[in-house]
Amino acid sequence: MSNDTEHMKARLREYVEAFNANDAARVTALFADNATVEDPVGTPVRRGRAEIDAFFGHATTVGARLELVAPPRGSHANAATITFKVHIAGPDGTAHIDVTDVMEFDAYGKIVSMRAYWGADDYHRAGAA
Amino acid sequence: MSNDTEHMKARLREYVEAFNANDAARVTALFADNATVEDPVGTPVRRGRAEIDAFFGHATTVGARLELVAPPRGSHANAATITFKVHIAGPDGTAHIDVTDVMEFDAYGKIVSMRAYWGADDYHRAGAA
Repeated sequence: MSNDTEHMKARLREYVEAFNANDAARVTALFADNATVEDPVGTPVRRGRAEIDAFFGHATTVGARLELVAPPRGSHANAATITFKVHIAGPDGTAHIDVTDVMEFDAYGKIVSMRAYWGADDYHRAGAA
Repeated sequence: MSNDTEHMKARLREYVEAFNANDAARVTALFADNATVEDPVGTPVRRGRAEIDAFFGHATTVGARLELVAPPRGSHANAATITFKVHIAGPDGTAHIDVTDVMEFDAYGKIVSMRAYWGADDYHRAGAA
C-alpha cells in the first residue's frame, strides 16, 4: 500500500528534511497536483499545483527550520500527523511557532490535504514560554 | 468568545486532567450533546451524549494516563490540538500509545468533534522505541 502508516510517516519525515534543506521542489513533489493546503487552519485554502508551489517556494526562503517534538502519528485511515516547532528569525530576534500538521494521502502516496494548526498565541519569542 | 484559543487550550488541559482523575462525568461535561468522537481516525464515529458517555465511561476505567508531550496548539478557527502519550497497562506489561487529538469547539465552548490520530504502529511496549 502506498498510503499505509509506514509510508505516511516516512513522507512526513521527508517533508521536514526537505523543508529544512530549503528545497522547495523536494517539498512540493510530496503533494498531489490537486492538493489543498490550509496553513494556518481558519485562513484561505491554497489549492492545486501553482498555489502550492508558490506557497512553499516562499516558505523555504525565509530561513525557517522545522523541529519535530514527537514522533509522527498515523491513523486507521489515510491520515497522519506531525507536531513540531518552526524556528524563525523574527523582527525582534529568534522565535518559534508551535504547530501540528494533519496530512491526508491519496492512493498514490501523495499528500492531498495539509491542515496546519497554529494560532496567534502559538508564536513565541525566544526566552518566552 | 467561548471558542477562542485561550479557552480551547484550557479545555484541552482540563480534558487531560479530568481523564487522569478517572472522572468520566468531568470529561464528558466538556462535550456538546451532539458531539462526535472518532478514536482512532478511520474507525466508526461515536455520535451524541449516550455514545460519548459510554465511550469515556469505559476509557476512564482502564487505568490509562495521558501525558502531554507538547503544548496544545490553537488555530485561526474553532479547532485546537493536543499531542500526548497514553500510558497503559498492556497484556504484557506497561505500554504507551502516541496520539494527536484534533478537537473542534462550538459557540458555547463545548467540544463538538474529537478526532484521535493513532495507528497500530503507534502502540509501543515499554522499552521499545
